[in-house]
Amino acid sequence: MPDAGAPIGVFDSGVGGLTVAKEIMSQIPNERIIYFGDTARVPYGSKSKTTITGFTRQIIRFLMTQKVKALVIACNTMSAYAIDEVEKEISIPIIGVVKPGARVAAAQTKNKRIGVIATEGTIGSGMYQRFIANIDKDVLVLGKACPLFCPLVEEGMLDDPVTDEIARRYLKELMEKDIDTLIMGCTHYPLLAPTLKKIVGEKVRLVNPAYETARELKEMLSDTGMLNPDDLAKQSKGHEFYVSDLADKFRLFAAKILDDPGLTTDKVDIEKY
Amino acid sequence: MPDAGAPIGVFDSGVGGLTVAKEIMSQIPNERIIYFGDTARVPYGSKSKTTITGFTRQIIRFLMTQKVKALVIACNTMSAYAIDEVEKEISIPIIGVVKPGARVAAAQTKNKRIGVIATEGTIGSGMYQRFIANIDKDVLVLGKACPLFCPLVEEGMLDDPVTDEIARRYLKELMEKDIDTLIMGCTHYPLLAPTLKKIVGEKVRLVNPAYETARELKEMLSDTGMLNPDDLAKQSKGHEFYVSDLADKFRLFAAKILDDPGLTTDKVDIEKY
Repeated sequence: MPDAGAPIGVFDSGVGGLTVAKEIMSQIPNERIIYFGDTARVPYGSKSKTTITGFTRQIIRFLMTQKVKALVIACNTMSAYAIDEVEKEISIPIIGVVKPGARVAAAQTKNKRIGVIATEGTIGSGMYQRFIANIDKDVLVLGKACPLFCPLVEEGMLDDPVTDEIARRYLKELMEKDIDTLIMGCTHYPLLAPTLKKIVGEKVRLVNPAYETARELKEMLSDTGMLNPDDLAKQSKGHEFYVSDLADKFRLFAAKILDDPGLTTDKVDIEKY
Repeated sequence: MPDAGAPIGVFDSGVGGLTVAKEIMSQIPNERIIYFGDTARVPYGSKSKTTITGFTRQIIRFLMTQKVKALVIACNTMSAYAIDEVEKEISIPIIGVVKPGARVAAAQTKNKRIGVIATEGTIGSGMYQRFIANIDKDVLVLGKACPLFCPLVEEGMLDDPVTDEIARRYLKELMEKDIDTLIMGCTHYPLLAPTLKKIVGEKVRLVNPAYETARELKEMLSDTGMLNPDDLAKQSKGHEFYVSDLADKFRLFAAKILDDPGLTTDKVDIEKY
């Protein structure tokens, strides 16, 4: 079994999961992260459950070779499709971004109407709906797939009238159905929070699953005595970043998001795992 | 060696190549097509040359098991990155969409200023620029990556003020540089031709590489005596469609694009090839 000094494996289909890694770094700064982004096969949003579960198993096999003490699926689609199957197959704790976000949304809604915006895969899986129904069967969960949001974020169009217009269309139905809570169910979406806030107004609360996931991870490590007692600066290594393609492009993006110009990224042939 | 009765392998990263398959069916209706769409790893547009060349080799290995007489790379990114390497490795003719489109554009331009719109991968490869320079070194080729066009097409936003606005931004610089010819360098883009035409006006000619590729394939088969002499209806099998994921979703889309509600699609584990 790994000890408290072991790193945490965090993985995503690409760069989006860096927002989750950043939250973990901020909330539990002693923890060392091994990040994997599947940039050769990104995006996962419109692929099947079987394919995504297979990809998830390959990534977990790679991260297990890095002797991690816990895993975080920093991708809503993988969390939605694969977590229930893969958690039976491994001996260390695994947390996905779906359940923490769902729990907080269910606790916060007053009128029991929650909206979820995410990729087609996450919405199609019905995972948020099922999980929230398990907590409180009286909550109505309305899902809306927003396939243009990720490419808009990747084009850097975060504050743009075109993005406003597309967001207005995507959110129209949810607003007409009077939601009071909106889960940003894709790791790219918190970067659109100012745009979303402008459209949904003050009465709707935005839930950021990245934040809630880091909080839950901290609690879980604390409850099991697995929080790393040592300052990261005193550990033998820092965070490590791996991708399946375009390591340099990833490195530039990650360096900006994490405000760490010195980070390095290595390429892994993930299909071998 | 395969004979004239053998099928033609046509492949793409996903559904986009169906526009090329459709042109082939229309221009040389006797030819039987074996189509492969890599829906598990789509899109290719922002992946590296090494990764894309590897994917291309796997797809070719699969299509060779189907005893094809010729191959058509119905994907600009694969044509741009991989064709020069893979054509040395196989014994049957292979045509990509880049060269036919480039040849026609070079022949048509009057003021020697050609614009190319495509994915980041195709533009970044500089393939259109290099190939046109080989034909006529005085032609100025201006490339512009348009990463939002594919998701807009996949959202069905073909005739929409948002798409107009995004197209206007993407084309602004090319129009200021006074192009008279515009290559639609991604198989999705011909579906946006009416929008593009509205913005570039009558003075700019649009080049559709799918059309030119089918024309060149027909010529090549004719010149080598390899045109199929038999009516497709009299052959033992019809067209066949294979994908790496989501066969049902692909089937619905293909049935619509090709106006053939009866077509079937099978899933192939492409990573095994």
